[in-house]
Amino acid sequence: MAINALPSSSSELRALIRQGKWTGPTVALAPGRVQANLVVLPKEQAFDFLLFCQRNPKPCPLVEVLDPGNPEASQTAPRSDVRTDLPRYRIYRDGRMSAEVEDIREEWRPDLVTFLLGCSFSFEAALQHAGVPLRHVEEGKNVSMYITAIQTTPAGQFSGPMVVSMRPIPRDKVVRAVQVTSRFPSVHGAPVHIGNPQDIGIRDLSRPDFGDAVEVRDGEVPVFWACGVTPQALAVKSRPPLMITHAPGHMFITDLRDEDLAVL
Amino acid sequence: MAINALPSSSSELRALIRQGKWTGPTVALAPGRVQANLVVLPKEQAFDFLLFCQRNPKPCPLVEVLDPGNPEASQTAPRSDVRTDLPRYRIYRDGRMSAEVEDIREEWRPDLVTFLLGCSFSFEAALQHAGVPLRHVEEGKNVSMYITAIQTTPAGQFSGPMVVSMRPIPRDKVVRAVQVTSRFPSVHGAPVHIGNPQDIGIRDLSRPDFGDAVEVRDGEVPVFWACGVTPQALAVKSRPPLMITHAPGHMFITDLRDEDLAVL
Repeated sequence: MAINALPSSSSELRALIRQGKWTGPTVALAPGRVQANLVVLPKEQAFDFLLFCQRNPKPCPLVEVLDPGNPEASQTAPRSDVRTDLPRYRIYRDGRMSAEVEDIREEWRPDLVTFLLGCSFSFEAALQHAGVPLRHVEEGKNVSMYITAIQTTPAGQFSGPMVVSMRPIPRDKVVRAVQVTSRFPSVHGAPVHIGNPQDIGIRDLSRPDFGDAVEVRDGEVPVFWACGVTPQALAVKSRPPLMITHAPGHMFITDLRDEDLAVL
Repeated sequence: MAINALPSSSSELRALIRQGKWTGPTVALAPGRVQANLVVLPKEQAFDFLLFCQRNPKPCPLVEVLDPGNPEASQTAPRSDVRTDLPRYRIYRDGRMSAEVEDIREEWRPDLVTFLLGCSFSFEAALQHAGVPLRHVEEGKNVSMYITAIQTTPAGQFSGPMVVSMRPIPRDKVVRAVQVTSRFPSVHGAPVHIGNPQDIGIRDLSRPDFGDAVEVRDGEVPVFWACGVTPQALAVKSRPPLMITHAPGHMFITDLRDEDLAVL
């Protein structure tokens, strides 16, 4: 199905994805609607993970958490089914990726708890609306991500360093970028650091740990935000018997509008 | 010990309370420091309660959640002990209050999870700093609280109506009151309703369900905020085998400053 033939309604898009008619990335779909990262864990691990998110809201902003066994995101996407409504999933067993699939109905169990976490799409839309340019978007790249020396606050079996994303911001737009993203604590919120990468343990901006490198030009400042890769990276490190996530870029499309997440 | 002989430092106050030298209410203590509501539940009930708070952040704003068995609020009050550092506690067994005590060391178990929830003191200080008068404070009364027709979002065994507090606000200060409290989502945040009490199922403002009635005068508008009584009232209704809370007005004093909770 061609992307320009797709409907713009979030519920219609979820229905198409459910029917297997769209298996690609979701970035350009349903503009203005909140897309979410997916983490599914057995209830045995879910308390610690929920606590970890509560303690680390910048890297792990919870948009919705479903009851054990319930696959419907009733608050943010009524009549959805998280087992079928994402284009692509990754299945991890004992901390190792075992499969990439388009449907997780076969894996489903009554003790599985689904976490939907805010994603940077909402936040980047807000920056662009405010006239803050985003180089990686302009260049069609993945944002640069780095493992830092900033430690998350541990919870039970989950602990480790925070992963951040970096965006080069023109010097005269840095304050605006802080203001705009501060309004969206549910999608990582205000930056965690502005300026010198070494201050947070990043040695070389040209060698990101995930994503693609982008140039920081004269007159630009590297600005760092907590990144949604953090919870997945740390969760998998704790080797839960089963963990299911979205495949990178293949997100869950909710009915929420980006502005619904704004605090002010 | 006379209240004017008390230290103003939060850690010194906790030490005095721990030694049993202060067993009264905490409202006038450590101005500018965040005070918290306490809810302690066995781990068996803790996941559902944490989920309930995540889904209902206005009535249940989490300030800190401690690991099972850990009595130290290491993020908000290093070297504290929640078993001794509140002046007075209430112990509920199977949903009924069984004792009011000054210390819960005898009740402590390795599976107990402590929830610290934001309290309206921080929020009322912000209103007063912004020049918004608070009648119940001026009259030395407890704020008026009402059970509403607004349902909370259930989580597992926890469900029921939201309890709100009401403050009469001069018509020309209502917008300011919304702005000021919106900055503090961790202590109930923006109002849930402005104006007609019937709209949210309150029949008679002069007959609050908890606290004291206050007059709403000509030129004033009743403004309603989600209230921290909600989680306690609903948790006890679910009849957990054991639940421990602070006694009303006898809060946990953290080291956080009120402004630390402001989002912008």
